[in-house]
Amino acid sequence: MKKIYMDHGSSTPVDKEVIAEMMPYFNKFYGNASSIHSFGRDAYDAVEKSREKVASILNADAEEIIFTSGGTESDNLAIKGVAFRNKKKRGTKGAHIITSAIEHPAVLETCKHMEKIGFNVKYLPADKYGLISLKELEDAISKDTFLITVMFANNEIGTIEPIEEIGKIAKEHDVVFHTDAVQAVGKVPIDVNKLNIDLLSVSSHKIYGPKGVGAVYVRKGVKLQTISHGGGHEKGLRSSTYNTPGIVGLGKACELGKIRMKKDVAHMKKLRDMLIKETLKIEESYLNGHPEKRLVNNAHFRFTAIEGESLNMMLDDKGIASATGSACSSMKLQASHVLTAIGLKPEEAHGSLRLTLGQMNTKEDVIYVSEVLPDIVNKLRKMSPLWNR
Amino acid sequence: MKKIYMDHGSSTPVDKEVIAEMMPYFNKFYGNASSIHSFGRDAYDAVEKSREKVASILNADAEEIIFTSGGTESDNLAIKGVAFRNKKKRGTKGAHIITSAIEHPAVLETCKHMEKIGFNVKYLPADKYGLISLKELEDAISKDTFLITVMFANNEIGTIEPIEEIGKIAKEHDVVFHTDAVQAVGKVPIDVNKLNIDLLSVSSHKIYGPKGVGAVYVRKGVKLQTISHGGGHEKGLRSSTYNTPGIVGLGKACELGKIRMKKDVAHMKKLRDMLIKETLKIEESYLNGHPEKRLVNNAHFRFTAIEGESLNMMLDDKGIASATGSACSSMKLQASHVLTAIGLKPEEAHGSLRLTLGQMNTKEDVIYVSEVLPDIVNKLRKMSPLWNR
Repeated sequence: MKKIYMDHGSSTPVDKEVIAEMMPYFNKFYGNASSIHSFGRDAYDAVEKSREKVASILNADAEEIIFTSGGTESDNLAIKGVAFRNKKKRGTKGAHIITSAIEHPAVLETCKHMEKIGFNVKYLPADKYGLISLKELEDAISKDTFLITVMFANNEIGTIEPIEEIGKIAKEHDVVFHTDAVQAVGKVPIDVNKLNIDLLSVSSHKIYGPKGVGAVYVRKGVKLQTISHGGGHEKGLRSSTYNTPGIVGLGKACELGKIRMKKDVAHMKKLRDMLIKETLKIEESYLNGHPEKRLVNNAHFRFTAIEGESLNMMLDDKGIASATGSACSSMKLQASHVLTAIGLKPEEAHGSLRLTLGQMNTKEDVIYVSEVLPDIVNKLRKMSPLWNR
Repeated sequence: MKKIYMDHGSSTPVDKEVIAEMMPYFNKFYGNASSIHSFGRDAYDAVEKSREKVASILNADAEEIIFTSGGTESDNLAIKGVAFRNKKKRGTKGAHIITSAIEHPAVLETCKHMEKIGFNVKYLPADKYGLISLKELEDAISKDTFLITVMFANNEIGTIEPIEEIGKIAKEHDVVFHTDAVQAVGKVPIDVNKLNIDLLSVSSHKIYGPKGVGAVYVRKGVKLQTISHGGGHEKGLRSSTYNTPGIVGLGKACELGKIRMKKDVAHMKKLRDMLIKETLKIEESYLNGHPEKRLVNNAHFRFTAIEGESLNMMLDDKGIASATGSACSSMKLQASHVLTAIGLKPEEAHGSLRLTLGQMNTKEDVIYVSEVLPDIVNKLRKMSPLWNR
């Protein structure tokens, strides 16, 4: 059977060049990067070269990159790191974090945890496209606000937030600005200086790098408290033996991402627009998210009277890998918090489908999906008590 | 030049069979293990099979294994997880953790952090061999003690602690028992039930698996609070997209470790004893740690009037990779806390050398080291103001 992968928002295959770059670090240069012997120095050099590559795709300095185990840890470190440091200075009383209602669970659940332990958190609403309001953001800032954390691009509906404007507001009010850029890196040009970003989360496995590794950009001068205690690696911010092959993989993925971005973006945008155009021909189908301000690889639909999970499974039967709601988190039954935040009713949210394209997808893939999808939607609607036509 | 790696305590090469097992999960079965499509299910199945393999080497149940990014995270999760859960129940006031003075920094620094945030911590001393006293342990237990965390085997001097007896005492007093078994797995048979262990940390890269992955065994019924907020993976205990290749690698490493343990142990013990015998022929050389209760691959020496780091570097010049103090942590200048805890003066501690053997080391390797080492020691002593003979 034809196998088509359109779930790159959940995870990407590791690029062959990335694998090739990683391989020697498994059983040739296998020293601990903190060891002083030649095996260790080889590993250390590789880690530092990767740091430069990760920095380069963000226009950051190498010393501003901290390696982590992935996007979730990066988000946890950025938010808790600033919060705990702030707490030391002046306690939690009144200390205020601003985030959005449509963040990835790694940010949202961390913020909920911060609330539980005494911080105040403001969850900015999103409009029907998934955009936060800059006015509401500015109104929410008080003298107690020490952190704004708003995602670069939404992992479900693909909406790209007004990061430059948020950065400007944060800077004006002297508030630290963190953004979860896990979905944006490699698809949107990012310049942390131009955008006034202080902290930014990167995940390797969303950009054709290996799973289990990520990074957080920490602007020079921004102070964090560690959340992982131990050997004191990464300037004391992230203890753990360096995952050399993983870090090398992330570095290579960033290097390739930077080189290929223009071509990738053009390729995926063309396919995405074709996919959207074809899919919206289906009766009572709608695009979720913003028509323009969206990730080049994200097509997110809802279909009246459809159960998204059944749709996923029937597409899977036809060899097509897709997602319903956010596939980043473990299987959950409740309607996506993003889709309800943009105003969808639970039954509308449950009728949603996310198709996220990748470098390797072709026009033929899109044609195949466009052929298969209408039949599946029709079939499911025939079985649905909600469909009365 | 001949290259001899005798720093397996810092990190091991990844076994070829482990690499082979991991490979397909980079770019064939690359789905997110939480996704419901076939790419995701393949990844999920692989994760669950690995869980069984990790459980098997500990005589645990698969559902008691939580995957992490490595030993440091495992230690952090075990200790903070129990502590924060306990705090919820009855606050930190008086809440008491017992550990030892010779723990790995991942445990020690975590305990110091717990102290800072209000917990009481007792650091049990060690005797000249690095053994804790069971009487002192029992005396330290109070009604407020909720956690004992004592390492299985020391990462520097290789001393194996009386884990079975500690487990018995912990059980009698109804205290949760965690052990950092990062150095012991694959070298010492471990049965978490027989040993009454409640929580146990595993690291993949110390047992011929890849870096960046580990696990923590959590006995059924032992409740933890998560330290990583997000998608709610691993029963809510460890959020983050599954590092499928890493987890597959850890699983395979445990499978091989279990099969090969008997043979490995015999092989390494023979080489270690030969290495110790030959090295102790050097004038004013001493073995650190216990003569019998020590890891089969650990040979830890001190030499009067020698600076350990220079010794390391000169061995490195001869192609021999060794460690001074603990190579797990980042470069530090102070004397090892383990060596001072067993009663060495700073200058004695600084004159120490750790050689840790691996599966691939040969008799020829030991002979080469035994030929090279005395000359280097002599050379360094000639330059040392502390050597007056």
